[in-house]
Amino acid sequence: MDSKQRVTINSQFDGGNIEVADLSDAEDIQLNVRTDRQSKDCQWFYFRIAGAGNLHSRIRILNAGQCNYPAGWEQYQAVCSDDLQNWYRVPTTYDGTELVLSLQPATDCCHIAYFAPYSLHRHYERISAACRSDRCRLESSTKTVLGRDLEILRIGEPGPNRRVCWMVARQHPGETMAEWWIEGVVDRLLDPNDAVARSLLSNMVFYVVPNMNPDGSFQGNLRTNAAGVNLNRVWDRPDIHTSPEVYWVKKTMEATGVDICFDVHGDEALPYNFIASSEGIADWNDSRQQLLDSFKSTLEAVNPDFQTRYGYPVAPRGKANLSFCTNCTAAEFGSLSMTHEMPFKDTKGTPDDIFGWSPARSKLLGASNLDVVHAHMNKL
Amino acid sequence: MDSKQRVTINSQFDGGNIEVADLSDAEDIQLNVRTDRQSKDCQWFYFRIAGAGNLHSRIRILNAGQCNYPAGWEQYQAVCSDDLQNWYRVPTTYDGTELVLSLQPATDCCHIAYFAPYSLHRHYERISAACRSDRCRLESSTKTVLGRDLEILRIGEPGPNRRVCWMVARQHPGETMAEWWIEGVVDRLLDPNDAVARSLLSNMVFYVVPNMNPDGSFQGNLRTNAAGVNLNRVWDRPDIHTSPEVYWVKKTMEATGVDICFDVHGDEALPYNFIASSEGIADWNDSRQQLLDSFKSTLEAVNPDFQTRYGYPVAPRGKANLSFCTNCTAAEFGSLSMTHEMPFKDTKGTPDDIFGWSPARSKLLGASNLDVVHAHMNKL
Amino acid sequence: MDSKQRVTINSQFDGGNIEVADLSDAEDIQLNVRTDRQSKDCQWFYFRIAGAGNLHSRIRILNAGQCNYPAGWEQYQAVCSDDLQNWYRVPTTYDGTELVLSLQPATDCCHIAYFAPYSLHRHYERISAACRSDRCRLESSTKTVLGRDLEILRIGEPGPNRRVCWMVARQHPGETMAEWWIEGVVDRLLDPNDAVARSLLSNMVFYVVPNMNPDGSFQGNLRTNAAGVNLNRVWDRPDIHTSPEVYWVKKTMEATGVDICFDVHGDEALPYNFIASSEGIADWNDSRQQLLDSFKSTLEAVNPDFQTRYGYPVAPRGKANLSFCTNCTAAEFGSLSMTHEMPFKDTKGTPDDIFGWSPARSKLLGASNLDVVHAHMNKL
Amino acid sequence: MDSKQRVTINSQFDGGNIEVADLSDAEDIQLNVRTDRQSKDCQWFYFRIAGAGNLHSRIRILNAGQCNYPAGWEQYQAVCSDDLQNWYRVPTTYDGTELVLSLQPATDCCHIAYFAPYSLHRHYERISAACRSDRCRLESSTKTVLGRDLEILRIGEPGPNRRVCWMVARQHPGETMAEWWIEGVVDRLLDPNDAVARSLLSNMVFYVVPNMNPDGSFQGNLRTNAAGVNLNRVWDRPDIHTSPEVYWVKKTMEATGVDICFDVHGDEALPYNFIASSEGIADWNDSRQQLLDSFKSTLEAVNPDFQTRYGYPVAPRGKANLSFCTNCTAAEFGSLSMTHEMPFKDTKGTPDDIFGWSPARSKLLGASNLDVVHAHMNKL
Repeated sequence: MDSKQRVTINSQFDGGNIEVADLSDAEDIQLNVRTDRQSKDCQWFYFRIAGAGNLHSRIRILNAGQCNYPAGWEQYQAVCSDDLQNWYRVPTTYDGTELVLSLQPATDCCHIAYFAPYSLHRHYERISAACRSDRCRLESSTKTVLGRDLEILRIGEPGPNRRVCWMVARQHPGETMAEWWIEGVVDRLLDPNDAVARSLLSNMVFYVVPNMNPDGSFQGNLRTNAAGVNLNRVWDRPDIHTSPEVYWVKKTMEATGVDICFDVHGDEALPYNFIASSEGIADWNDSRQQLLDSFKSTLEAVNPDFQTRYGYPVAPRGKANLSFCTNCTAAEFGSLSMTHEMPFKDTKGTPDDIFGWSPARSKLLGASNLDVVHAHMNKL
Repeated sequence: MDSKQRVTINSQFDGGNIEVADLSDAEDIQLNVRTDRQSKDCQWFYFRIAGAGNLHSRIRILNAGQCNYPAGWEQYQAVCSDDLQNWYRVPTTYDGTELVLSLQPATDCCHIAYFAPYSLHRHYERISAACRSDRCRLESSTKTVLGRDLEILRIGEPGPNRRVCWMVARQHPGETMAEWWIEGVVDRLLDPNDAVARSLLSNMVFYVVPNMNPDGSFQGNLRTNAAGVNLNRVWDRPDIHTSPEVYWVKKTMEATGVDICFDVHGDEALPYNFIASSEGIADWNDSRQQLLDSFKSTLEAVNPDFQTRYGYPVAPRGKANLSFCTNCTAAEFGSLSMTHEMPFKDTKGTPDDIFGWSPARSKLLGASNLDVVHAHMNKL
Repeated sequence: MDSKQRVTINSQFDGGNIEVADLSDAEDIQLNVRTDRQSKDCQWFYFRIAGAGNLHSRIRILNAGQCNYPAGWEQYQAVCSDDLQNWYRVPTTYDGTELVLSLQPATDCCHIAYFAPYSLHRHYERISAACRSDRCRLESSTKTVLGRDLEILRIGEPGPNRRVCWMVARQHPGETMAEWWIEGVVDRLLDPNDAVARSLLSNMVFYVVPNMNPDGSFQGNLRTNAAGVNLNRVWDRPDIHTSPEVYWVKKTMEATGVDICFDVHGDEALPYNFIASSEGIADWNDSRQQLLDSFKSTLEAVNPDFQTRYGYPVAPRGKANLSFCTNCTAAEFGSLSMTHEMPFKDTKGTPDDIFGWSPARSKLLGASNLDVVHAHMNKL
Repeated sequence: MDSKQRVTINSQFDGGNIEVADLSDAEDIQLNVRTDRQSKDCQWFYFRIAGAGNLHSRIRILNAGQCNYPAGWEQYQAVCSDDLQNWYRVPTTYDGTELVLSLQPATDCCHIAYFAPYSLHRHYERISAACRSDRCRLESSTKTVLGRDLEILRIGEPGPNRRVCWMVARQHPGETMAEWWIEGVVDRLLDPNDAVARSLLSNMVFYVVPNMNPDGSFQGNLRTNAAGVNLNRVWDRPDIHTSPEVYWVKKTMEATGVDICFDVHGDEALPYNFIASSEGIADWNDSRQQLLDSFKSTLEAVNPDFQTRYGYPVAPRGKANLSFCTNCTAAEFGSLSMTHEMPFKDTKGTPDDIFGWSPARSKLLGASNLDVVHAHMNKL
C-alpha cells in the first residue's frame, strides 16, 4: 500500500475488546478500552491492526486513566503478535491519562493485547486433548449464563484415601495467564513419563476448571460474567441464575470435598508472583499457617519466578471476605486454599526484556506447583 | 461419569449452529438446525457434545427435511472430530424427514459439523502468516456489515503486462471447503521452492479474498451475511450498507481489472467437483468457450478428483443471472470467470470412505488450479 | 573461546569426506577431497567444522582442480548448515586450481558439503515410514557388497493390466539430490488425499529403490560402491560379487517387467534439470521418440525448473552404451527409460540465490514427474 | 511378500551391533552379540530386521549367557521401533543361556536394540542446536582415538564466584540413556523461560560432555573406546594416545576447577535409578557425607523415579578406586562427585509396562537434577 493506505482496527472476535475513537491519522491512532458488557469494569484490550506494515504508528488508549487499575499501566508494556503464537512486548508509556504504544509492525497484520490472549478455540482444543488421555474424564459440564459449557476435568481416580485438589482459573476472564498456568498443570498431570505426576495420581485426585468464565472470556471482559457478576465475590451465596458458574462448581466441591484449592489470577499492578491465602477466616490456626508457609517457601525454592516478600495485605483474623473462593473454600472445607497471582507486567526480580511475564513462564509456574503439592501430599 | 452422566450440547462459539430440542435422553438426542441470523436459510450445523464418552448416542436433527437442500442429506455423512483437526465421517441416515447420526465417541468431548469448519481464528493466523511473506501484501481491509475486516491479499506485483487473477471464497459462509481450497492456493503461491508459483508470479498478480463473509462465518450462517444478504446475488448492484463486502471487492476489481476469476463454493447435493461458468452472458463466444473447455479438461487431467461430466445446467445465451459473481465479472471485465463447486459429501468417482471430501483434498484441488492457470497464462 | 580457540574438522560420520592438509591457521584452512574408498573418483565432500564461531575463515580445497569434474566448480557455491536441516549456499570461488569457501559461521558448529547430504539414518526412517503405509511393501531386501540391505519398495499392487514403473536413485552415492527426488515421489504416492496418486495406483505399480548404493553413501563416495564399481557401467553384465546391487535389482526387473524406468542422478557441471534417454539403442523408433518428447515437454510445462534445451549429446542409433541403466532397460524391456539429471549448482533460468538447487526443489521435481507419468499412463 | 519372503538382518550403521548365526528359518532367527571392536566386552545390540512384516518371529540371541552381565537379561525386555523414534518393549525371556525375543512386527521394517539408541546424527544435531543459543559455547573440541571431535559445551559464563558443574556421559557408549539424560539437562539450561535455569546460570557455569566416547558409540561398543579402553578405569592416569578423551577432559577440568561432577551411566542389572559416590576416598568426611545425603534425598523428593535404598556397595574409607571419574574428581578437586546410574530394564517401584525405562524418562530425570543442584547451589 502507499498513499491510499488504510489502517483498520478490528476486535470483532473471541476475546476482542477495543473501541475506535479516531483512525483518521494512521500514525496517531486513538482508541478506548470498552467496558465489560454488563459492568463498568475495564482494562482488558485485544485488537487486530491491519494495513500498518510500513508505518511507525503511535497508538493512544485515551481512557487508560479511567480504567480499573491505573497503577497497572505504570512500568507496563503491551504485547503484540505477528503470528498469534508469540507475544512480545512493545514500547509503552503512561502519562497518568493515556497509554501510548509505539508500534512499527514488521507485517501488515498484527494483534495487540493487554496480555497474551487465550482463545476459546484453544480452550476447546485442550479440553479435547485432555479427554483423550485415559487419566482424565470430563467430570461434568454445567452451563454458564449464556448456555456455554463450564468444564470440570477430573484427573485421576477418586477414592477413600485420596486427597482432593481443586484448581479454578479465570474467574476474571481478562486474567488469561491463569489459563496458561492451568495448561502447564494439565500437561504435566497427563504426561505418562513424569514421575511426580504418577505419584500424585496414586495418592490424589484433581478437579480442574480451566476457565470459570467462558462467557466473559468470549465477550472480552476484564472481570465479569455475562450477567455482570464478579464471580470471585459470590462464593458465599452463588446464584443459580446470575452466577451459575460458581453455583455448580461449589455444588461439585460439596460432593467431592476439598483438601487443597488453587484460585488462579493475574494482578494488574504488582510485578510479582505471589500467593494470598485465607488468614482472615475464623478458624485459621498455627498448623494451617505452617502449612501455608511451607507451601510458599517450597514454591519459591523450586521456581525462582515466585517470591514471598511482596503481595496483598493479610486480613485480620475473623475479617476474611467469605465471598472469595479462597476464603470460602478454606472456611467451608477446611482446605489449604490459595489465590495465586501472576503479573500482567513482569517479575521485578527475574525480568525478561523481550516477553515479560508470558504464557511459557505461566505454564512452567503452574507445573512447578505440582512439585509443591507433591512435597506436601501427606500434610493436606 | 456414570448414572449421573449429563450430556451437554454447545454451539456458542465461532461458527457454531444448533438448537437443542430435547436432551432428556442422552442416547436419543434431538436437535434442530438454526436458521441464518437474518434469513430463513439453514443447513449448516456445528456443535460440541460433551459427556458422551461411554454412550452410543443417536443424534436426530429433526428439521433436516425443512432445510434448504433436503437432497443434500441423501448419501451424506456428517463429520466429527476429537481434536478439532481431523474430521472423520460418522454413520448418518436420512429418511426424508430427520437426519440421524450414530455416534459412539471415543472421548468425552467431540465436535460435530456439516463439514470441517474453518474458524475465524485460523483465518487470522493464515492472513498473518501470508503477510509475513515478502510476496504478499494486504491490499486492503475494508469493512463488513458488523465492522469486521474483509481482507484482500495481493500476491505478486502488479504491472503493465501482468495478468490479473481474482479468487474469492466463502460468499456463502457455510461452504467452508472454499477457504480450505484457498489455503492450498496461498500456501503454494508463497512457497519459494515451487517453480510453478515462481513462474506465475513473474507473469501475473493474484488478488485473493480468503473469506468474503466473515460475519456470516462467525455467526454460523449457511448462505448470508449479517444483513441477511446472499452475497452471490448482488454483484450487479452491491449496496454499500447491506452488502459492503461485494461493494468494496468490486470497487477494487474495477481498479485492478480482472483476467481470470474464481468464485469458490460448496454444493450441498452433487457428489462432484465441477465448474460452472458464464455461458449465458450476452458476449459469450467460441474463443471464450474454448478457453473454458481447455481449463476444465486440463484441471481434470491434473487432478482426477475433478470431473467435467456432472454439474449445473448451462444458461442459454443472454439468460445469465448477472447478480452472480461469475457472470457479473465475466460480463464487466471480459474475464474467464468460473464458479468452482466442491461437494459436502464426497466425490462419487474417487471416494474416501473415512474422510469423504475433506480439507486436505480441498487444499490439493486449490493447488492444482494453479497448474491450470499456469498452463493458460498466455491465453488469458 | 578466545586466544586459545581451536578449530577442528571432522568427517568421521555417515557420508563424511574430507582430509585435513593444514589447520594451523584457523582463518586459512586447507583441505583435500578424499577419493572414493576403492577408486580414484573424487568430488563429494562433507565435513563438520567446530570452534569457528567468531572467525571469518577461508576454507581452501587444495585438490579441487584434480577432482573428476573441474567444470563443476565454476559458478558453484558450497552448502552449509547450522542445524543439519537447512543447507544454504556460501560464497565460493574457483581459480582453476583451488576451491575457496568464505565462511563466517553464526555458531560454533556447522556442517559443510558439496550438496545437502542424505544420511543413512534418514534413509532408514523413510523406509520405515513408507512400510507403515498399507500401500507399500518392502518387495525385497537384497544385499550390498558390505552386507547392507538394498531396499526395493513396492508401492501399489501388481496385476495383469498394471503398467510397471521402476525408479532407481543414487547409483552414484554423492548425487544425494536423487534421494531427495525419490522422497518427493514416495511422499506423494503414499498421500491418501492425492488424487493423482490414487489414480496412478489404480493403474500401475511402482518399484522404487531410494538408494542403489548405501555402501558408497555411508563411505562418502562420489561414484562407486564398496568394490570400487561405478554401478551405472555394469547393467549389461552385473556381477553378483562386485555389483550385487545391480545384479539383484535387474533380477527383480526381469520378474516384474518394466514399462517406464527412471534413473535419477545429479550432474556436476550443467546448471539445468534435464533428461537423457536411450535414443542410441538399436530398436529406437519414432513412436518411442514421440513418447519421450511428450514426456519431456509435459514435465517442462508442469514444472518450470525443468527444461529441454540443454542436456547431454544424443548418441547415434546403435551406439548406445548398454552398460547404463537407461539404455539397458530400454533395450531389454522395451521401456521408456530416462536418466533424470539435476544440478549440483542451480538452475540457470530459475535461480534461487539463497539455497540454489535444493532438497525442497528436488522433492517437488520428483513429485511433478508423477503428474507426467499420470498424463502418459495409457501410452506406456 | 509371500512364499519367497526373505528376512534380512543389518547392523551396518552408526551404533549397530549384531552377528547373524542362522537366518535360514525366518521364524527362528539366530544371532550373536558382537564383542566391542577392541575388547571382549559385549552386551549392546542394535540391528534392523527387514521383510518380517507378516511373520511371528522368534529371535534368539545365542551368546546372551556369555555377555558381560548375564544378570542383566533377567526381567529384561528388549526394545523395538517402527519409526526410529518410539521404542517399545517386546516380550523377552532368558533361560540362563539364550535371550529370546518374540516379535510380531506390524511393518516390514523395524529396529531392535538393547536400549533406545542415541545416534551420532542426533548428537551432532543437538550440539549444533545448543551452539545456536547465546548461553552456550563450544568450550573445546578435542580429538578421540579415531580423530572424532569430543565436544565440551560451556553453558553460562565463568567467573570468580561462579560454582563449576561438570557433567560427563557415555564413557560407556552402550549406556545410551546417559546421553538422553544430558539432553534433558541441556534443554532445560537453555530454556529462556525456566526460572531455575536462569538462577543457576547467574550463579554457576556448566561444562557438559554429552558423549565421552563417540568412537565407541559409532562402533556399537558396550564399554570401550576405539583403543579398547574402558574410559572409566583410567582417570588417575589417562593416556593421551589410548584414552585421549579422558586426558583432554581432565586437562580442561584442571583449568576450570570442579565443584560438582556428574558421571552418567546405565546399569545392566539393577532395576533402579541410584547414585554411587566417592565415600571411599581418603579425605571423605561428615560434611561431604551430609551434602551427598541431602543431594540424594532431595532428588528422591523431586523425582520419584529416583530412589536411595538400592545401589552399589559403598567402598570403605581409603579404598576408593581412583581410576573412576567420580573418585578421581572428588579426590583431586574436592568436588561432590556422583555416578548416576539408570536401569536398562525399568524402575521396579514405578514401572512403565509399555516403554520401561525410556529416553523420555531419562530426560526428565536429567532435568530434575537441576532442581537439586539449584537447591544446593550455595553449599557446593
